[in-house]
Amino acid sequence: MPLHTDRTFEEQLGHLRASILEMGGLVEDQIAQAIRALIGRDEALARATIERDHTVNRLDVEIDDLCIKILALRQPAARDLRLITTALKVTTDLERIGDLAAHIAERALEIMAEPDLKPYIDIPRMADQARDMVHRALDAFVREDAELALAVCAADDAIDQLHAQLFRELLSFMAEEPRTIRQAMPLLFVSKALERIADHATNIAEMVIFLVRGRSIRHLDTLPRTL
Amino acid sequence: MPLHTDRTFEEQLGHLRASILEMGGLVEDQIAQAIRALIGRDEALARATIERDHTVNRLDVEIDDLCIKILALRQPAARDLRLITTALKVTTDLERIGDLAAHIAERALEIMAEPDLKPYIDIPRMADQARDMVHRALDAFVREDAELALAVCAADDAIDQLHAQLFRELLSFMAEEPRTIRQAMPLLFVSKALERIADHATNIAEMVIFLVRGRSIRHLDTLPRTL
Repeated sequence: MPLHTDRTFEEQLGHLRASILEMGGLVEDQIAQAIRALIGRDEALARATIERDHTVNRLDVEIDDLCIKILALRQPAARDLRLITTALKVTTDLERIGDLAAHIAERALEIMAEPDLKPYIDIPRMADQARDMVHRALDAFVREDAELALAVCAADDAIDQLHAQLFRELLSFMAEEPRTIRQAMPLLFVSKALERIADHATNIAEMVIFLVRGRSIRHLDTLPRTL
Repeated sequence: MPLHTDRTFEEQLGHLRASILEMGGLVEDQIAQAIRALIGRDEALARATIERDHTVNRLDVEIDDLCIKILALRQPAARDLRLITTALKVTTDLERIGDLAAHIAERALEIMAEPDLKPYIDIPRMADQARDMVHRALDAFVREDAELALAVCAADDAIDQLHAQLFRELLSFMAEEPRTIRQAMPLLFVSKALERIADHATNIAEMVIFLVRGRSIRHLDTLPRTL
């Protein structure tokens, strides 16, 4: 039986946790940048956000390698094993969040080519909430905190509602003024991307709950009130 | 060191491969059903497709458990280890494909409430191609066939183009006839969902190439001609 209590193993897990937080910090910044580029009509910032996706992708490959190395060399059991299989899945969600931030920056470039449709109120609010969910989901992961993870899952509804509301609003805009379609459509995709970012944060949080409690809430129709 | 050549281990891997093919078969059927429901304006079939997502989700949890059991009991090394970490990621993509099929069925229900916008030509073609990509990506996974996986990656462009073409067409419809927005928007989301299904199939294929060749093509801008 390999020892799981030696310092080097703990150090490796610490390195894994730090790398995931680093990747998380990058995608959080990427979301914030994409939204700043959109609102400030900042073409250079939008392009820098798209470019930055390479760094996120590099970390994705590195963390996967780290997970596989730990599995191969340490052959961890029980909870440690689940921690690493969860990390493998968390990187996939983070990588997709990075893709969505780049997607928002691309839409921002399209929107810049047209006059502003209306002042941005809901989009920055949704972006803040989505970033906060990503941040807390990763906090929950590194601290293995199921209660925090459950709070992240519960926050998803608010973003879904904001998206639904903005969607209806943009649909009315387009129906009344067909010439607004070229601005409204990319804005609608920005809203959808933020909603999907929140979904990925929720996926991460659900996996944390599974990791800590050994209970899957992934495919329940309603959230449990307590765990 | 645990033995990796005994029959039981091979049997477990065989069971894992079979379960992934089963899950793949389910989501392929789910895609086909969702499109049949859309085209045939079949409300019962659309609802059955949404309901079916539970079976896909159950398999997702079961396969993850199987992977973790094999990792814990067998402590596989090298290629076998990568096969299992890849399987853990493949189930995530399959689960999301199932979600997207259910999403298509939900849009089909919305579309049924309105008169037909135009005959369906591109959507069934895209759906066939997307299903075929999912099927071949999983074939490539169980056979560990990198050439087949590369062909799946190469097929993604055709779907992206069909989606872009349909997107432009629906945008013109909406601009010319704002009253068509209520039919055109859900149709646009169906097209987008099919494009995302193809992206998930591509993700799976990229992971297969990485598994077999140890080379990541995930984040390259252009595909290599040969491996």
